[in-house]
Amino acid sequence: MIPDLKFDEKGLIPAVIQEIDTKEVLMVAYMDKKALGRTIETGYTHFWSRSRKTYWKKGETSGNVQEVKKIYYDCDADTLLIMVKQHGSGACHTGNRTCFYREIELKESK
Amino acid sequence: MIPDLKFDEKGLIPAVIQEIDTKEVLMVAYMDKKALGRTIETGYTHFWSRSRKTYWKKGETSGNVQEVKKIYYDCDADTLLIMVKQHGSGACHTGNRTCFYREIELKESK
Repeated sequence: MIPDLKFDEKGLIPAVIQEIDTKEVLMVAYMDKKALGRTIETGYTHFWSRSRKTYWKKGETSGNVQEVKKIYYDCDADTLLIMVKQHGSGACHTGNRTCFYREIELKESK
Repeated sequence: MIPDLKFDEKGLIPAVIQEIDTKEVLMVAYMDKKALGRTIETGYTHFWSRSRKTYWKKGETSGNVQEVKKIYYDCDADTLLIMVKQHGSGACHTGNRTCFYREIELKESK
């Protein structure tokens, strides 16, 4: 069921999480094989925390869980794109709906 | 102009590339400081190729360039989200519009 994905030297693959209705990119987090397996099995996103060295189910404490609707993988098979229904107030621990809430200023001419 | 981003131990930061009109996630590639600088300076995406160990301007040979419209960074400041206008036929070297053209099958019940 899981294709031949390329996990990195730490056994991880980045997963881009996109809201299926709004098409907003909510966050990027990392999965190992087990986290991906749990995500597929349960239908809710599970990740590996690189800083805390532990598995986490997104929204386990906040209730802001992510219901998995589609999982895509890219041409190099080294990145996942997961379409989810975001439950609760949003994906970001800061309270923002998306983790990408800050912008880098571009040149005036753009 | 560039905020205090967290580049990884190889000096890289992943950049999610999203089409500004269709909201499709097209690809994920990696930038170092110089590639990000060139992207901001020129208004077109530039990356560092981890396999070829070289800088590349997206679409330089194919013409499928990506015009930068917005650059966001996430709460951890370790991932970029770049909204682009995708020129030409698409982002993927396979000829697909997006690199995420393959899907992992989910359980029947989903």
